[in-house]
Amino acid sequence: MRVRALWYGNGVLSLIDQRALPERTVVRRLRHLTDVADAIRTMVVRGAPAIGVAAAYGMVLAYREGSYTPARAARILVSTRPTAHDLAVGVETVRSAWEADADPVVAAEKYRERVVEECHRIGIEGAPLLKRAHRVLTHCNAGALATVEWGTALSPIRVARERGADLFVWVDETRPLLQGSRLTAWELARERIPHAVIVDNAAGAFMRTGQVDAVIVGADRIARNGDFANKIGTYEKAVVAHENGIPFYVAAPWSTFDPRRSSGTSIPVEERAESEVLGWAGRRVAPGRSRARNPAFDVTPARYVTAFVTPLGVVAPGKLAGLLARRTSPRPDPA
Amino acid sequence: MRVRALWYGNGVLSLIDQRALPERTVVRRLRHLTDVADAIRTMVVRGAPAIGVAAAYGMVLAYREGSYTPARAARILVSTRPTAHDLAVGVETVRSAWEADADPVVAAEKYRERVVEECHRIGIEGAPLLKRAHRVLTHCNAGALATVEWGTALSPIRVARERGADLFVWVDETRPLLQGSRLTAWELARERIPHAVIVDNAAGAFMRTGQVDAVIVGADRIARNGDFANKIGTYEKAVVAHENGIPFYVAAPWSTFDPRRSSGTSIPVEERAESEVLGWAGRRVAPGRSRARNPAFDVTPARYVTAFVTPLGVVAPGKLAGLLARRTSPRPDPA
Repeated sequence: MRVRALWYGNGVLSLIDQRALPERTVVRRLRHLTDVADAIRTMVVRGAPAIGVAAAYGMVLAYREGSYTPARAARILVSTRPTAHDLAVGVETVRSAWEADADPVVAAEKYRERVVEECHRIGIEGAPLLKRAHRVLTHCNAGALATVEWGTALSPIRVARERGADLFVWVDETRPLLQGSRLTAWELARERIPHAVIVDNAAGAFMRTGQVDAVIVGADRIARNGDFANKIGTYEKAVVAHENGIPFYVAAPWSTFDPRRSSGTSIPVEERAESEVLGWAGRRVAPGRSRARNPAFDVTPARYVTAFVTPLGVVAPGKLAGLLARRTSPRPDPA
Repeated sequence: MRVRALWYGNGVLSLIDQRALPERTVVRRLRHLTDVADAIRTMVVRGAPAIGVAAAYGMVLAYREGSYTPARAARILVSTRPTAHDLAVGVETVRSAWEADADPVVAAEKYRERVVEECHRIGIEGAPLLKRAHRVLTHCNAGALATVEWGTALSPIRVARERGADLFVWVDETRPLLQGSRLTAWELARERIPHAVIVDNAAGAFMRTGQVDAVIVGADRIARNGDFANKIGTYEKAVVAHENGIPFYVAAPWSTFDPRRSSGTSIPVEERAESEVLGWAGRRVAPGRSRARNPAFDVTPARYVTAFVTPLGVVAPGKLAGLLARRTSPRPDPA
């Protein structure tokens, strides 16, 4: 029953097409770098850690194709989406191996294993936070689909459930692409974890009326000072949680931490097509003359974060910079 | 070009079917009390002031049908939706006339005229607030469709535009029923007022990055202390506006003020069908096993309100109770 977002073998990267869920489980089998770039751009695969791993395998496919330099392959993949830090980390990990004449497949496999292991550690480290937080709210999908296995925000929920915790998950539907109702609910339903989908608008009302014990989300990029980018709407949930004295946790593997960025001010925020807001299933929902704005992410200042749930434990925002400076686990920095 | 949500003549209440907008402009012609009750329940007509007026005419139709007592007709209409205070005010206004052997048609016409006039006054009183607020965010639809003519939140925007103000409106799409992208954008597009539709999740990000000068919304019920109910999501916008030092205005005619309620604690909040959240245009968007919660409104504490825009002027929350006690304009209280 455990979900895996992607897997690799014999020159083929297989991905669950996340656009088709929950109606259909469609697996895309990719053999070319450009297919992987398209899959990331069109959100066949999404979620920062998962696109990092997909991109790592994209480098492997480029290496096998024989017609790319490492630099050119890296450039194509990194240009697909600007916000997730993991994308560059996954790409650079394999590029380093390739340029050093090491086996890119081994480098990509190790990278995937590291991300999965870190996500499992996040679950183990984060589960105790849910001992007294029975009703947890999450935004977007920070589950196995977003991270290959386990998830970031969903990993402590999974581990706590395995340990017998009595949990209920509030699932923000997460407009415009509904990764909450389509993907998070799908993961929770498969594992029979009790949950209710709500419109994003309703999260605050449930917080104010004492029906949310904790909020836990993933991230796309975390600066040294703890400012972080995540799916649009995260900032609102963080502010309202703070206003109501509800703990707000951000769970992420090391590939999401951007140690070269001192604050969130300069994090690039992708703006996607207006049609994601103005239409639905091919049908226009706003007047023909209306325009839309569609930032896919927002940046939440560190002061709204209670703690980061990392593979090494639960860390207050103020202690993040020190931890990142001391951390010695192997992870190539992006160039 | 001016929008009118409904009109009455010769025993027929005509309503724009707000479920069909913006794709089609469909007018429903109602001749029976039960048709009006259904139209309110199914949101053919919505918006607190507009359902108050529709219900006033519903009483007229009941009177003409000859088979209802005033009390029974009132009970049927008031039970359709619980949150909007205006519904009871509209019903009780006509019921009083009916019980006093006055002409219910005259009472309903006068009630409609008063609501329209009050909404126009809201525009005149509120327009000066927008002199230095060029980029205004609104939630749901508090326009002509919600109030018969002018609107509440949109009335100051209309009046300021007539006076030549350079305005831009951020339109929250307002899940689950998209009254923002479907109705507010439709009204603004007709009058060529520049605007952009955003997912509700994005409002906070635009506030934090300095792109919103003021927030203005309508209300469904306002307690004496200034706590108020409005479309789900209003609370989140109010908290985030407050956090960013952005003025937050609530515009409403007198029928929305509930002088018998001392605070928002006891305002009844309607919970609507799960299918509004879990489906879209007949297509399920969440797994079959997933449930949803769907409160249609939330309650925002008065401390997040900069001022109320009333037909008598702009009033700080702390001065509201005094004004309501002193107000002598004719308005029967609901029984």
